[in-house]
Amino acid sequence: MTEEQGAGRRLGRRPGGTTTRSAILASARTLFAEQGYDRTGVREIAAKAGVDPALVHHFFGSKEQLFIAAMRLPNIPDLVAQALAQDPEALMQGRLGELLARLVLTVWEDKAVQRPALGLLRSAVTHPRAAAMLRDFAREAILARIATQLPAPDRELRVSLVASQVVGLLMARHVLHLEPLASASTDEVVRAIGPTLQRYLAGDVCGEGGF
Amino acid sequence: MTEEQGAGRRLGRRPGGTTTRSAILASARTLFAEQGYDRTGVREIAAKAGVDPALVHHFFGSKEQLFIAAMRLPNIPDLVAQALAQDPEALMQGRLGELLARLVLTVWEDKAVQRPALGLLRSAVTHPRAAAMLRDFAREAILARIATQLPAPDRELRVSLVASQVVGLLMARHVLHLEPLASASTDEVVRAIGPTLQRYLAGDVCGEGGF
Repeated sequence: MTEEQGAGRRLGRRPGGTTTRSAILASARTLFAEQGYDRTGVREIAAKAGVDPALVHHFFGSKEQLFIAAMRLPNIPDLVAQALAQDPEALMQGRLGELLARLVLTVWEDKAVQRPALGLLRSAVTHPRAAAMLRDFAREAILARIATQLPAPDRELRVSLVASQVVGLLMARHVLHLEPLASASTDEVVRAIGPTLQRYLAGDVCGEGGF
Repeated sequence: MTEEQGAGRRLGRRPGGTTTRSAILASARTLFAEQGYDRTGVREIAAKAGVDPALVHHFFGSKEQLFIAAMRLPNIPDLVAQALAQDPEALMQGRLGELLARLVLTVWEDKAVQRPALGLLRSAVTHPRAAAMLRDFAREAILARIATQLPAPDRELRVSLVASQVVGLLMARHVLHLEPLASASTDEVVRAIGPTLQRYLAGDVCGEGGF
């Protein structure tokens, strides 16, 4: 990523849109991750990117919209859809839980994902609007591709139960650093968490009788 | 709780120790819950309690020690021990998971518990020292009475898995407000989460063979 410092007439020498946009996004990701949503300002993001704050508003409208763009995680719905395309019977044959656990852990190992995602989690905990953003993103990302395949009556409860264990796992490993879970290998965590996710996705979660 | 305003020589008219201590704790709980650990100062806590900051240091030493005292949750180890005393076979007969889920949810319903505990969670996410405090408290509180009854080889992993689901449940219900889990009744959540906790406590979490 190129530095586009412009001490003087920044707006006048407006640089190429794509590069500037990328620089703003990178700056936003870093600052949101380090400081959370509410303690990071557009001016600060612009300064770190070496552009005028007006350019940030030009490209993204508001701080909120910039946040959403900056936090764009890897396309989890697509990854899930690809995985299911390769193994379409996974849900009903009891493998979707492990598949999903492995997917989350693998995606998460990438520091380029982990840092902004932790920033998002931090922001969500201290800022209701960021919590709403994370919730909306999770619903959109997970519901869009997974929920349609789940047993209909309890679909939304199932998705929120999956989210609760995934969020708790990330909190335990990366925020609270609870050992030995924090240092457990991907395989160990998949063995431990996979059956939980599978039961939430397709098992009996709502009563004695199941469905 | 009595207001102990002292515009002038606060230290000179030092009030009864118990009342002052309670006022400081109440003030600390409110401010930590509203603002998190790092944005709350001893001076502010003292001002809200109507006492001199020196009194806060007199009673609690440091902000960190005040935080620990203020966040003192209900004695979960004792509650678990009592529950197990009434139902000593719960673990091996598959009921400890539901018992623990119900205990967590019931204790949590008390707003006097929920508010400071959410403050603690918020602080933990943004402040590594608070995360360490929460981790230490959780380990102390849960390990002390439950872990000794668990299968020995994977005891610590089991406890951290339980913590991951409990933390994730509280995040989903009270921070992210993920529906329908956020509005589900205690009974519904116990049915959904209980078997997860039971498997983490006594089931096969570490491999094909179990223990």
